[in-house]
Amino acid sequence: MIIDVHGHYTTAPKALEDWRNRQVAAIKDPSQMPKAAELKISDDELRESIINNQLRIMKERGSDLTIFSPRASFMAHHIGDFSVSSTWAAICNELCHRVSKLFPQDFIGAAMLPQSPGIDPKTCIPELEKCVKEYGFVAINLNPDPTGGFWKSPPLTDRYWYPIYEKMVEFDIPAMVHVSTSCNACFHTTGAHYINADTTAVMQLIEGDLFKEFPALRFIIPHGGGAAPYHWGRYRGLAQALKKPLLREHLLKNVFFDTCVYHQPGIDLLTKVIPVDNILFASEMVGAVRGIDPETGHHFDDTKRYIEATLNLSAEDRHKIYEENARRVYPRLDAALKASGR
Amino acid sequence: MIIDVHGHYTTAPKALEDWRNRQVAAIKDPSQMPKAAELKISDDELRESIINNQLRIMKERGSDLTIFSPRASFMAHHIGDFSVSSTWAAICNELCHRVSKLFPQDFIGAAMLPQSPGIDPKTCIPELEKCVKEYGFVAINLNPDPTGGFWKSPPLTDRYWYPIYEKMVEFDIPAMVHVSTSCNACFHTTGAHYINADTTAVMQLIEGDLFKEFPALRFIIPHGGGAAPYHWGRYRGLAQALKKPLLREHLLKNVFFDTCVYHQPGIDLLTKVIPVDNILFASEMVGAVRGIDPETGHHFDDTKRYIEATLNLSAEDRHKIYEENARRVYPRLDAALKASGR
Repeated sequence: MIIDVHGHYTTAPKALEDWRNRQVAAIKDPSQMPKAAELKISDDELRESIINNQLRIMKERGSDLTIFSPRASFMAHHIGDFSVSSTWAAICNELCHRVSKLFPQDFIGAAMLPQSPGIDPKTCIPELEKCVKEYGFVAINLNPDPTGGFWKSPPLTDRYWYPIYEKMVEFDIPAMVHVSTSCNACFHTTGAHYINADTTAVMQLIEGDLFKEFPALRFIIPHGGGAAPYHWGRYRGLAQALKKPLLREHLLKNVFFDTCVYHQPGIDLLTKVIPVDNILFASEMVGAVRGIDPETGHHFDDTKRYIEATLNLSAEDRHKIYEENARRVYPRLDAALKASGR
Repeated sequence: MIIDVHGHYTTAPKALEDWRNRQVAAIKDPSQMPKAAELKISDDELRESIINNQLRIMKERGSDLTIFSPRASFMAHHIGDFSVSSTWAAICNELCHRVSKLFPQDFIGAAMLPQSPGIDPKTCIPELEKCVKEYGFVAINLNPDPTGGFWKSPPLTDRYWYPIYEKMVEFDIPAMVHVSTSCNACFHTTGAHYINADTTAVMQLIEGDLFKEFPALRFIIPHGGGAAPYHWGRYRGLAQALKKPLLREHLLKNVFFDTCVYHQPGIDLLTKVIPVDNILFASEMVGAVRGIDPETGHHFDDTKRYIEATLNLSAEDRHKIYEENARRVYPRLDAALKASGR
C-alpha cells in the first residue's frame, strides 16, 4: 500500500474559517467569543469536502492512506493566547478525527498542538493525550516557531521542549516539525518560512545532542528536509567541525525526510543523498502548490510520479518509502492497520 | 581563467579582531573608542595571511582570481549604530583593497556596506562610492537582515532598498545577497541563517516585480541559491500561482547562483536545474566548511572538483561558469581584466 504521511485538511467547509474569523475578532471583544458548539458542520459536508478533493486525488494518483492533520497555515499559533489556541486546536483536531471515522480506510489523524508563543509546551499535553487516546491519532505536528516568523522559542534541542518529547516517547509517536503561516513580511509562508523552518530544524538537531537524551524520539522534516539534502555536504562538514558523529549516526536514526519536493531532479537528489530508510512518501496534497507543471503536464505535487521515475530506487526501496518506513516510524499507524487486517 | 566570485577575508591578521573587540567594548564607554588609525597591519602581515591561505589553496586547486570581500560573519551589522558600522566597514574594505593591490592578479574587491538596523540604506552610498571609484571594487555584499536573524527590514523588493539599487545600476555592479552572523539562537550562522537568507531572498524576488523597475539590477544568491534549486518545482509552481511569468523570464535575467554547494549530488542538481548562464563558480574558501570529506578524501569546499566531475556540463558550459558569466555579471571585473590584458 501507499501511505502519504503529509496531508492537511486544507479543504474544510467554509464554516470553519467563518468560526475562526469570529474567534479572532473576539480577541478584542471577549463578549463576542463564539462557543465551539456554535460551529456546525455535518457529516455530509465533511464527506463532500473530502470526496471531491483529497480522496479523489488519492484515487487518481494511487495512494491508499493519508496521515491527516489540520491545515498547517491555519494553525496560526501566534493568534491570541493559549485559550484561543486551545479551543482552535481542539476544533481542528476533532474535524480530522471525524474525517478519519468517515473514511477509516483512507485517513488517520495527526494532531496540531495548542501552542502559543512563550507558553510552556507542557500545556499542549492534554490535547495531545486526547488525540492519541480518544481519536487514535498516530503523530503530532510540532511548530518550532509559534510566533509565525519571529523565532523566539528556544531551539528544538532545548529542555523547554522536553515535556512534549517525553509524551512522544511514552506514546511512541513521531512529530512532524511544521511551522504555520508567516507574519513576517520577509518570509513568504510556503516559499520561505516552511522551507527555512525545515532547514533550521535540521541544523538545530545537528548542533545539539538531543537523541542521546531521547534515543527513541523521531522527527519527520517535511518538504524534503528543506535545504538539507541539497547541502548535505555542508551539513556533513559542519557536523564534522562540531565534532559530532557522522550524520548517519548522529541524525538519521531519529530524523526522516518526506518527499514533498515538486520536481524530478529534487527527488533524484533526495533519493541519492538520503538513505532510503529515512525517506517517507508524502505529497502535502491539497497544499501549497496546486498547479500543473507546464514542463510535464502533471501536477507539481504528484510526487509519486517522481518516485516512480527516479533511477535511484529499486522496487524494494520504493516499498520502503511508500509503506514500510511509515509503519516503522509511526508504530500506532502500523498497529491500526494490522488491527484492520492491513 | 577561473574566477571564484565568492571569497571573504576570513584569515585577516588577529590585530583586526582585537581592534574590533575594542570597538565593540567601547560602545558602552565611548571614551574608550579606538581610532581607525590605531589599527596597524603591515603589508607583510597581509601578504602572509593570504599567501599561506587563500592564495595557496587557489594555486593548489587551480583557480585564478577571487572576488574578495570582508569576512561575512564579522560584518555583524547588528552591533552598535551607524557610526560603528561605518568605521568597521571602512576598515574591512580597506584591508580587502590592500590585498587586491598586493596581489592584483589574484584578488579584486567587493564591498561590505555599513548597514545598521533601521537605518536608511542610503547612508551606505558614500562607502559604496569610495569602494567602486577609489578601490576599483566590482560588487557589493548586501545584507537583507542587518539585525542578524530577527528579520526586521522590509523585503528586498521594497522601495526601502532602492537607493542602493539606483547606485548599483549607475555603477553597473551586482550585489551578492549575504547575511552576517546570527544572533538568534534558533539559527546556526552558516548552517541555517545563511541558507535561509538565500532561500528567503529568492522567494522575495519571486513575489515582487523588482526587475520590472530595475531591469539592469543583478543579484548573486550565494550558497547555490539556498534551497531554491532543490525546490525549483515548488518555486515554479508558486510563481505560477502568483501569476508571475516563468522564472526564466521573471527571475533569471537578473539572478545568479554561485556554486558553493559542498558535495557532488548538489552540484549535479544545480547544473541540471539552473540554466548554465545563471551559474557562477565559487567556493567561499576559506570559509564555513574547512574540513576534508571522508567520503572523497578532498575538501568539502573544493567545488571545482564537482564542476569538473558532473556529467551535466560541456567544456563550453564550464567555461561559462568559470569565467564568461562572471565577466558578464560583473562588468567592472571584465573591464579591469581587459585593462591588464587578460
